[in-house]
Amino acid sequence: MNEVTKKKRAVVLVSGGLDSATTLAIARAEGYDCFALSFDYGQRHVAELAAADRVTDMLGVAEHKRVYLDLGTIGGSALTEACIDVPKDGVQPDTIPVTYVPARNTVFLSIALGWAEVLGAQDIFIGVNAVDYSGYPDCRPAFIRAFEQVANLATRAGVEGQHFHIHTPLIDLSKAEIIRMGTDLGIDYARTISCYDADIKGQACGECDSCRLRRQGFAAAGLPDPTLYR
Amino acid sequence: MNEVTKKKRAVVLVSGGLDSATTLAIARAEGYDCFALSFDYGQRHVAELAAADRVTDMLGVAEHKRVYLDLGTIGGSALTEACIDVPKDGVQPDTIPVTYVPARNTVFLSIALGWAEVLGAQDIFIGVNAVDYSGYPDCRPAFIRAFEQVANLATRAGVEGQHFHIHTPLIDLSKAEIIRMGTDLGIDYARTISCYDADIKGQACGECDSCRLRRQGFAAAGLPDPTLYR
Repeated sequence: MNEVTKKKRAVVLVSGGLDSATTLAIARAEGYDCFALSFDYGQRHVAELAAADRVTDMLGVAEHKRVYLDLGTIGGSALTEACIDVPKDGVQPDTIPVTYVPARNTVFLSIALGWAEVLGAQDIFIGVNAVDYSGYPDCRPAFIRAFEQVANLATRAGVEGQHFHIHTPLIDLSKAEIIRMGTDLGIDYARTISCYDADIKGQACGECDSCRLRRQGFAAAGLPDPTLYR
Repeated sequence: MNEVTKKKRAVVLVSGGLDSATTLAIARAEGYDCFALSFDYGQRHVAELAAADRVTDMLGVAEHKRVYLDLGTIGGSALTEACIDVPKDGVQPDTIPVTYVPARNTVFLSIALGWAEVLGAQDIFIGVNAVDYSGYPDCRPAFIRAFEQVANLATRAGVEGQHFHIHTPLIDLSKAEIIRMGTDLGIDYARTISCYDADIKGQACGECDSCRLRRQGFAAAGLPDPTLYR
């Protein structure tokens, strides 16, 4: 292949939510050949995985891989354990919610790193953002920088002098800014699902933290909310 | 529960090989209540997983969990791809062998971290050692220290002030020293499997890098090699 025309490859974590869809659109707009990675990790609903398929179809990717990983066997989160209820009484400031999945982003980034190494990619995109990192420790910039350090020490590519970069294009954006940016990039957010408790048809509950932040985001962006609520 | 009598919990990565069996015996000897973690990661043979069961039965653990994770879908290693042959022409110094699985220890430690957090454990044991880290980048001390940094930033426990420690009791030991230590701790190494290409009965090939290092270890330790070769 001609090196001049060869696009740089990136692995993009795609959950099927609003944030990861926007992240994928940004990676594409930046000129990367995108390899989307989704996880079937024992989350409560398969609607999210169906949304990931719609998002990658909508935006276009070089490849979309789904890795099965049963984080539910480890437990500890309302997103993977049926016996813990998803809270619906509003976002609590300064606390880590029960929807936190222990070490989830570390696990996801590790597998993305392995695939990136196989693909010869040095760029990994993840849609963590400011709204999340008030609650989830593994959405903070310090965590991302520490993981980059691990990536460079853990891999053959790192030993050979390549430098992995974990891109977090949404990290400093508000939900409204993310929605405006994605809309400008042509995303149809009706195809995404953010709800922690979506039903089998992909209809959102409208009451969990994720639904509340999403709904407020559309309102603040001054755009109609295309989410299908039940 | 009485805090004075409560043993500290540790997550121990147990592959069924010589090194991880010794690591588990050390963790037990240090007084930890051990939670063993094995991975069904698309490795070539199930003999390794059967050995992990024998090792945990032999040494005794509070719980043994097996997590399914198909690293084979990512590819890139002779250990997970049937189309790449396991090399049998001797250990090559200063090169990373094709048996290297991209980001494997990062993935394994990430999942161990998630389980540790759920268990309220701050200690994780992994049997990386000096013989390996000449070849595998994710067996080096610098990688382990970087991962500890990630662990403390990634987790709710870390945010709340706990400090995770990744124990690598074998890291500076030769194979012979590991074997002598494990023998002193009562390990029957006949129950472990190190071979990269063991058959369904658990018989070792005797020719891959792992077999060579193991055989040389018993010889250097001056102990009989109980390995079942085919």
